[in-house]
Amino acid sequence: MHNYFNKKIKVGIVGGTGYTGVELLRILIQHPNVDLTVITSRKESGLYVSDLYPNLRNHISLKFSSLDNPDLMNCDVVFFATPHGVAMSQARDLLKSGVKIIDLAADFRIKDIDVFEKWYKIEHSCPDILKTSEYGLVELNRSNIVKSNVIGNPGCYPTTVILGLIPLLDQSIPLIDVDDIVADCKSGVSGSGKKLEASGLFSESSDNFKAYSVSGHRHHPEIVSQIEKISGKKVNLTFVPHLVPMIRGMFSTIYVKILPHALDIDFQELFVKRYGSEPFIDIMPYGSLPETRSVRSSNNLRIAIYRPGNKDRLIILVTQDNLVKGAAGQAVQNMNLIFNIKETIGLESIAILP
Amino acid sequence: MHNYFNKKIKVGIVGGTGYTGVELLRILIQHPNVDLTVITSRKESGLYVSDLYPNLRNHISLKFSSLDNPDLMNCDVVFFATPHGVAMSQARDLLKSGVKIIDLAADFRIKDIDVFEKWYKIEHSCPDILKTSEYGLVELNRSNIVKSNVIGNPGCYPTTVILGLIPLLDQSIPLIDVDDIVADCKSGVSGSGKKLEASGLFSESSDNFKAYSVSGHRHHPEIVSQIEKISGKKVNLTFVPHLVPMIRGMFSTIYVKILPHALDIDFQELFVKRYGSEPFIDIMPYGSLPETRSVRSSNNLRIAIYRPGNKDRLIILVTQDNLVKGAAGQAVQNMNLIFNIKETIGLESIAILP
Amino acid sequence: MHNYFNKKIKVGIVGGTGYTGVELLRILIQHPNVDLTVITSRKESGLYVSDLYPNLRNHISLKFSSLDNPDLMNCDVVFFATPHGVAMSQARDLLKSGVKIIDLAADFRIKDIDVFEKWYKIEHSCPDILKTSEYGLVELNRSNIVKSNVIGNPGCYPTTVILGLIPLLDQSIPLIDVDDIVADCKSGVSGSGKKLEASGLFSESSDNFKAYSVSGHRHHPEIVSQIEKISGKKVNLTFVPHLVPMIRGMFSTIYVKILPHALDIDFQELFVKRYGSEPFIDIMPYGSLPETRSVRSSNNLRIAIYRPGNKDRLIILVTQDNLVKGAAGQAVQNMNLIFNIKETIGLESIAILP
Amino acid sequence: MHNYFNKKIKVGIVGGTGYTGVELLRILIQHPNVDLTVITSRKESGLYVSDLYPNLRNHISLKFSSLDNPDLMNCDVVFFATPHGVAMSQARDLLKSGVKIIDLAADFRIKDIDVFEKWYKIEHSCPDILKTSEYGLVELNRSNIVKSNVIGNPGCYPTTVILGLIPLLDQSIPLIDVDDIVADCKSGVSGSGKKLEASGLFSESSDNFKAYSVSGHRHHPEIVSQIEKISGKKVNLTFVPHLVPMIRGMFSTIYVKILPHALDIDFQELFVKRYGSEPFIDIMPYGSLPETRSVRSSNNLRIAIYRPGNKDRLIILVTQDNLVKGAAGQAVQNMNLIFNIKETIGLESIAILP
Repeated sequence: MHNYFNKKIKVGIVGGTGYTGVELLRILIQHPNVDLTVITSRKESGLYVSDLYPNLRNHISLKFSSLDNPDLMNCDVVFFATPHGVAMSQARDLLKSGVKIIDLAADFRIKDIDVFEKWYKIEHSCPDILKTSEYGLVELNRSNIVKSNVIGNPGCYPTTVILGLIPLLDQSIPLIDVDDIVADCKSGVSGSGKKLEASGLFSESSDNFKAYSVSGHRHHPEIVSQIEKISGKKVNLTFVPHLVPMIRGMFSTIYVKILPHALDIDFQELFVKRYGSEPFIDIMPYGSLPETRSVRSSNNLRIAIYRPGNKDRLIILVTQDNLVKGAAGQAVQNMNLIFNIKETIGLESIAILP
Repeated sequence: MHNYFNKKIKVGIVGGTGYTGVELLRILIQHPNVDLTVITSRKESGLYVSDLYPNLRNHISLKFSSLDNPDLMNCDVVFFATPHGVAMSQARDLLKSGVKIIDLAADFRIKDIDVFEKWYKIEHSCPDILKTSEYGLVELNRSNIVKSNVIGNPGCYPTTVILGLIPLLDQSIPLIDVDDIVADCKSGVSGSGKKLEASGLFSESSDNFKAYSVSGHRHHPEIVSQIEKISGKKVNLTFVPHLVPMIRGMFSTIYVKILPHALDIDFQELFVKRYGSEPFIDIMPYGSLPETRSVRSSNNLRIAIYRPGNKDRLIILVTQDNLVKGAAGQAVQNMNLIFNIKETIGLESIAILP
Repeated sequence: MHNYFNKKIKVGIVGGTGYTGVELLRILIQHPNVDLTVITSRKESGLYVSDLYPNLRNHISLKFSSLDNPDLMNCDVVFFATPHGVAMSQARDLLKSGVKIIDLAADFRIKDIDVFEKWYKIEHSCPDILKTSEYGLVELNRSNIVKSNVIGNPGCYPTTVILGLIPLLDQSIPLIDVDDIVADCKSGVSGSGKKLEASGLFSESSDNFKAYSVSGHRHHPEIVSQIEKISGKKVNLTFVPHLVPMIRGMFSTIYVKILPHALDIDFQELFVKRYGSEPFIDIMPYGSLPETRSVRSSNNLRIAIYRPGNKDRLIILVTQDNLVKGAAGQAVQNMNLIFNIKETIGLESIAILP
Repeated sequence: MHNYFNKKIKVGIVGGTGYTGVELLRILIQHPNVDLTVITSRKESGLYVSDLYPNLRNHISLKFSSLDNPDLMNCDVVFFATPHGVAMSQARDLLKSGVKIIDLAADFRIKDIDVFEKWYKIEHSCPDILKTSEYGLVELNRSNIVKSNVIGNPGCYPTTVILGLIPLLDQSIPLIDVDDIVADCKSGVSGSGKKLEASGLFSESSDNFKAYSVSGHRHHPEIVSQIEKISGKKVNLTFVPHLVPMIRGMFSTIYVKILPHALDIDFQELFVKRYGSEPFIDIMPYGSLPETRSVRSSNNLRIAIYRPGNKDRLIILVTQDNLVKGAAGQAVQNMNLIFNIKETIGLESIAILP
């Protein structure tokens, strides 16, 4: 393993025009160990990056280049902020050239190819690479990520739900009834990206609240596969995503039933112990009310535990910025790990409030 | 019972300065059978109503009067849009004068005085009147409301959760496990009224999402008392309210577990049958996604049922405008019933969209 | 002139899928003198109207039909809620069939064909009809509208700016320097319609404010042509539109310089006199602060006049709901006039607040 | 002058509970040359700062202390993020102890005491200190600020309007008619602070737009005094502030009339030249449309110039984050100057978008 502490990591981004793309740019431009060398875009090739994203004016001089830009092969790592299916199509060539891959889409999130193909309606083109890839949820999988060349960066909802459940499941026997888990999740509108769909218009989504994908959302199998792996059991998860009229922010309310053998456990303490040394996980004091704005633009994820009446139901509240810890920030956290630099570098800025 | 179809109902409002107050005014001013004669306010006595609420300019010439305005005694009905405790303090005198009462606060919502006093931290001053009062959820209790002189208008959250559960519970045996009900509820900011608290400021609640009162909310015992009455069983309800950065709108996502004996039931049909003739309940086609904006400013409440994978979990989505069906509109619906005029009069306007 | 007070007006809408379309529908469905018989849409032909606009569920049973629906010819009046250029292409046939036309686009707003073609980049296909058409600003042009068969419904910005200036200009000599008029105008996002453009996305336009079309906006020549007609002089208008992160609402701040001969005029009184009997224009008391929400969803337009320090500058604040008085409401106001029914019918509902 | 490049500046904040206070904290905590030693609050004395502002959790361990905390006297500089009148009451003692003062309120913004007392309704308690203080608009007054011990940090509106006019006024003869300047300004809601007033509630200010203080706003004399000083002439400024439903951001649209002798000037070039080397002023290419979000949370101020039809009117668009360049960021920029460290330190972070 090389130590990049004293030299720059050469970074490329494929598909830099969406919201995870611009957020990656914002973080990487300010990252002291990064040398951003290439950003591709199918549609915007030739355009100055700062002409598309006015917040980057005077901060970046690169233009978007086309997808086949050979400079990608000279990078140390390439981020894919693309639709599903793009990373897998370029992975083999990049790996051959010694380039590491961090995919912010779903190509390397789900190990079971049948499940992947059922939910994403595309054939997986590199099952062998998928096998060697790692799920980039650092707080779950840090030791494997460090050694990996291909990272499947977690989905935004899965990040909150899995991190909210880990302490209850990574036990010899789960502490909760895995047949009875409800995750009621809420996301800001940026979660659906910059797609031109009527539902994303201000006049359609402002001053409004709704559920969506209630019959089934692609993040469902991703969550299930991870929590089944952690708990070693089949789980029954009910997961309903909702859309909140705010730009950024994700809030998951998780409802579980404590098993009889676990009724005497101090769950607050359990969570504090499990995550105590994690730089980006904040277990709030009992009775706290996390808010999405408290982590806006930061890589922090906050958790509060409630056990009303000290009975057998536990409520776990989890909040993050969907574009940072739920996407670009977590991807950079993975990069820092892989390149053996301090995990928090470039990710320490304080949330913007108000 | 008198028929008011051809004469005007003389209406008074106590406490007309909050958001349920102005919404009552908006509806009642436009109600063809209503003669609005008195509006009181402790703080704003002497002020023109339209000076406080600019939308009412040129629509109402009344001033706020003081709480002891004797004209209240000459009304046919008085609405209380006041804090908890006010209606009970004036109820006896009004009833003696033959004035009917519709309380939009909680004084007549909970029959069990111990429960009321525990949650509302005030003594109930007229238990005898409470006994004769009726819970004003029309679709549950219409036949009793018609004959009543005192109505406890339901809370906003209870309206959605109870109406979302009735068809599953008003059976010889409930169709769902009453020990395992989760209601994850979301409200627009107007639900917390016009109180001057930092949490209600635009800069605090815009672009933000959070849960609140997770340890216990006053609407919890109200919901439980009604669904226990309906089902005839003790129920275990987990209820978490959340705050959405929108002015109006409420959305409840209810998670229940179908009992084995009920697995073959067509729940969509069950709901359609139960509510088919209700003018303000809309059971949407299977697969629909209700949105709060679709009922903004209207008295409609919309329900969609989901049963993912046709398994044993049912998800009920319920939406309403918290200030209309969840407060002022429902109160007027009760008034229409009590005065024997068409239930929908004054409540038929179409939701504002976009 | 026929009197429609006792019979229904048969109404058609061409292009009912945009925001002015759905607003027309909302108003016309609730209009007691209207029989809505046909709604066309190029893209949505065959779809139930209520499937596109959930607020209309259970209020309308029509489907969108294709543009060449012959039923249009049997209407008494057809509204065009279409892009510019559609109304003029169908006007001749409709008029031959005795159908009156109210165009919510710009085809009949500007009498000077050269100006029209320069700004709208399309040839005008029926200059003769344009000549006989009337500009549908009721408070300016009521007596001509009554007798007209073709109405060019004003643009949203022009409605506010022209109504804000009329009392100062329709004098033997204008009271203000027509060479020095600034109109700084702000619109909610619905003003740009339901177009699928990135700038209309929630994540792009929420929590943001900007000017647009600063070099020139199509409403500029429309305003200028009317105020030159009123004042009988060439005017120099500086007009800058801005986008506000709200769905509905328009606010224009107009800055003018009082001419020496007019310095002693009581401008508040002047405005009150000019508009005193207008049902939809509210001249607010001196010192008032109009707000867009005070007219949200209503057909009212509010004006407040300021003359700081009683010097030679006058500031006129004008607010309306861009979709109602600025579009669909004003169109229905025109219809009422043309069909000789009370001008306010169907337009009297109170603004929604909060 | 001391050079603090290699040691920490000891910083105190008086009144750290408002929005400019928390923004100061966010910036100063991340500032590599700052040692934050004391934060006072009258109301919150004893509370952990991070309990009031959840974004600061795990970033600061200080508690609020009382106003008379003697540690203030040991600071190198004290920021006042207080209501008007507080800084002047403590200035003398602090200065005696060698502590520099940066006041974010108005105590040291206006040199003319009569004007100050007329607008702020309080007596000025230290006219002698006021005389030696400097107006902290860096781009106007850098050379004097460097040598000063007391800075009056500019108001948010004045920052945009003055910077938008400087290049047109700091000439031997002004290039524009100083008798005819209109500044139509728009601010996000955070500009009015964390005051508990109904008008600041989400339900009152969301989905709404309005003007306020049209008869006169305290920033008017501040702007006028500076631009009269720059131009050497009496000016006639019409200034109307408006409230935008967004948390942060300020946008000023300035309308001026070019004088005959200046009609041939290339104004774009003029602005570029005047501000070319300014690290925080961005003169955008001709035709650009600045947006508030493009500078959200950053210390940048963006200007675009328009001259429609190349005639005699100039429109200047200016945008900034009212809490950063309009308050806390500018204050830190002043601190950097005074302590002789690089002006941009601690202020270089990229705006958050979307």
